[in-house]
Amino acid sequence: MRIASIDVFYLSMPETTTAADGTQDSVLVRVREEGGLDGWGECDASPLVTIAAYSCPTSHGNIQSLTSSLAGESIDGPRDIRRVTASVLRRGLDIEQVHHALSGAEIALWDLLGKQRGEPVWRLLEEGSPGAAGARAHPKLPYGSVLFGDTPAETRARAENLRRRGFRAAKFGWGPMGPDERLDIALVRAAREGLGPDLQLMVDAGVAWGEDDLTAFRRAAAFSEFRPTWLEEPLLPDAVEAYRRLAARRPAVPIAAGEGSNRYRFAEDLILNGGVSFIQIDAGRIGGLDASLQVRRLAEARGIAYVNHTFKSHLSLAAALHVFASVERFRLLEYPAGGSELSEKLVVNPLLPGTDGLVRVPDAPGLGATVNPETVARFVQELEIRYRGKVLYRTPRL
Amino acid sequence: MRIASIDVFYLSMPETTTAADGTQDSVLVRVREEGGLDGWGECDASPLVTIAAYSCPTSHGNIQSLTSSLAGESIDGPRDIRRVTASVLRRGLDIEQVHHALSGAEIALWDLLGKQRGEPVWRLLEEGSPGAAGARAHPKLPYGSVLFGDTPAETRARAENLRRRGFRAAKFGWGPMGPDERLDIALVRAAREGLGPDLQLMVDAGVAWGEDDLTAFRRAAAFSEFRPTWLEEPLLPDAVEAYRRLAARRPAVPIAAGEGSNRYRFAEDLILNGGVSFIQIDAGRIGGLDASLQVRRLAEARGIAYVNHTFKSHLSLAAALHVFASVERFRLLEYPAGGSELSEKLVVNPLLPGTDGLVRVPDAPGLGATVNPETVARFVQELEIRYRGKVLYRTPRL
Repeated sequence: MRIASIDVFYLSMPETTTAADGTQDSVLVRVREEGGLDGWGECDASPLVTIAAYSCPTSHGNIQSLTSSLAGESIDGPRDIRRVTASVLRRGLDIEQVHHALSGAEIALWDLLGKQRGEPVWRLLEEGSPGAAGARAHPKLPYGSVLFGDTPAETRARAENLRRRGFRAAKFGWGPMGPDERLDIALVRAAREGLGPDLQLMVDAGVAWGEDDLTAFRRAAAFSEFRPTWLEEPLLPDAVEAYRRLAARRPAVPIAAGEGSNRYRFAEDLILNGGVSFIQIDAGRIGGLDASLQVRRLAEARGIAYVNHTFKSHLSLAAALHVFASVERFRLLEYPAGGSELSEKLVVNPLLPGTDGLVRVPDAPGLGATVNPETVARFVQELEIRYRGKVLYRTPRL
Repeated sequence: MRIASIDVFYLSMPETTTAADGTQDSVLVRVREEGGLDGWGECDASPLVTIAAYSCPTSHGNIQSLTSSLAGESIDGPRDIRRVTASVLRRGLDIEQVHHALSGAEIALWDLLGKQRGEPVWRLLEEGSPGAAGARAHPKLPYGSVLFGDTPAETRARAENLRRRGFRAAKFGWGPMGPDERLDIALVRAAREGLGPDLQLMVDAGVAWGEDDLTAFRRAAAFSEFRPTWLEEPLLPDAVEAYRRLAARRPAVPIAAGEGSNRYRFAEDLILNGGVSFIQIDAGRIGGLDASLQVRRLAEARGIAYVNHTFKSHLSLAAALHVFASVERFRLLEYPAGGSELSEKLVVNPLLPGTDGLVRVPDAPGLGATVNPETVARFVQELEIRYRGKVLYRTPRL
């Protein structure tokens, strides 16, 4: 198949705010081949900055736009996707945004190849690996994410609500967490009480303690009686040396981090040097599915756990799930349990849990998540970039 | 001083190509305070993608444009620059391009503060450090950079030419280097012969050996008889594990790397885990002068050498030099010895070597490099970004 067009869509709710809600806008990439087949991918990234990376004029050999690197390429198998990806990264070596931007097109290429082959993406990703022949997809346990309430009572109510909704695992994030140890403990206690003894509980500290590994260590000790599965991002994303010190202290709760990984090395660094026990990867930021797969393989080799980070639509959720569907041991799935209308309606077939509460990767060609053209039409925004009087970018037609 | 405006200019030569010449375009940032004083900075980055990072609509709390984070802030000392920088990075946490983009504004803020105080930037950077009172600026030995010729004879001619031009140090880069060991050795031999026995020679392999540390080790051994000061980027920028293995082999020539560092951790990782002997930082990519200074301090603490990476105008060169002017031991200065007309004429007062061949940091307020408004007017490009019918960015007036 030859790539005939790469179209990037800026979707947004009518209003966006500084709230901690990543579903207010989105950037969608559609790759179309000459025969008319489409693949779709979503980036977790600034739409405008991403579109600029697709459209920028050539500065020199290391700053060439993504569209120029993708146009006209032939895709006949997984190897071609990896070759084209390497070319985008090489020609865009000095575009810092390149990994965020590439994620959408790379995911779209896997979707496209899967549709052409009639195979789900997770099988294409396994192709050529030693266990490919016997590989099968395993169901995942979705966990819902909410913020801690401002008080323990409010937190308890949120936990009870998640439990009533049928979740068997739930993550509570930052909110007031950080400065006050007594309050922090009361919040985690309330979350556990609201969930009851049997549900899995995760705590996301939202980088509350900066580079202070001693405080993070003490909080982990204090939280341990409530048996959280992990303590997430107690420290700044870049503070790998502080993560290293924290790991050396042997905290009482396993540490999770990595959602900000925007290249393979970022995650590798956190695993090898930061000593995290759960590595959390957003396929819409790190450069797509193959970069995520490399991290998953490193996690397998090191005996730690791989988890997705997903805070966009179910197009992103499906993409994230294909990366680790075949690994039974990696059981937890971050599951966007709410969000904007744009995000909730972006695909016509969201990944709903089965009667057993587990989520299964779609057994369908490609990602198995079908973009709803009505949602795109409704939320797509007018954007035009003119350079030297010529149009570099204009909102494409559906 | 209150920031009154942040203006970003897209400069370009009439034609740009995929040649390995980073001076074909540029992105300039001017920060103006309410009293009318200006500071200027230059990024080594894609102009369009950088302008998008300054202008993008808010996606959520972690994607807020640089301009929105800078506008109206008060700058009365170095601490304010660091506070504002931290705010830009926090509010732009999920804009991958944020470090490249921030570099220009951060450098401009130091320039502005220096002008207001009547102090050179290098003194402001030292303020508050233990040795600040007795600090002084030390001259640097500029090295010229050229590509290897396609043949040893051509390489020898280039080396002789650099020697005639008065350089006492020179770096030769990639070209045909990589696949053929005999040719590689002949090229380095020719460079040494052309320079003569007394000049400093550096070899830049341009990531020729990917992740293959054994080949890099063998080349270092083969090159050592020609006494290169360093072997630069024998491996891919992200291949820190391969750099680690190379360091463990104890190569016969010191290893240099780091120009791609687009955040402090990138450089820290190369130093602590990659074991490099020279860390090369581009202040126009890593986020500006303070991030560069943190790398310099780590290099001082670890007993390795800090070197600038500069392949833009002398505005960037001056900025780069202020970072390590006060450290006598860090003697080498990458010196753009040619480039586009845009780049060569961007400042009215380029940093010329003295009669002793050494380059000194300007003893003037701010960066001490004055932007030529005629050059900006001549090379500035028309750009307009319209979103939902409203102008997000339009080429500002000088």
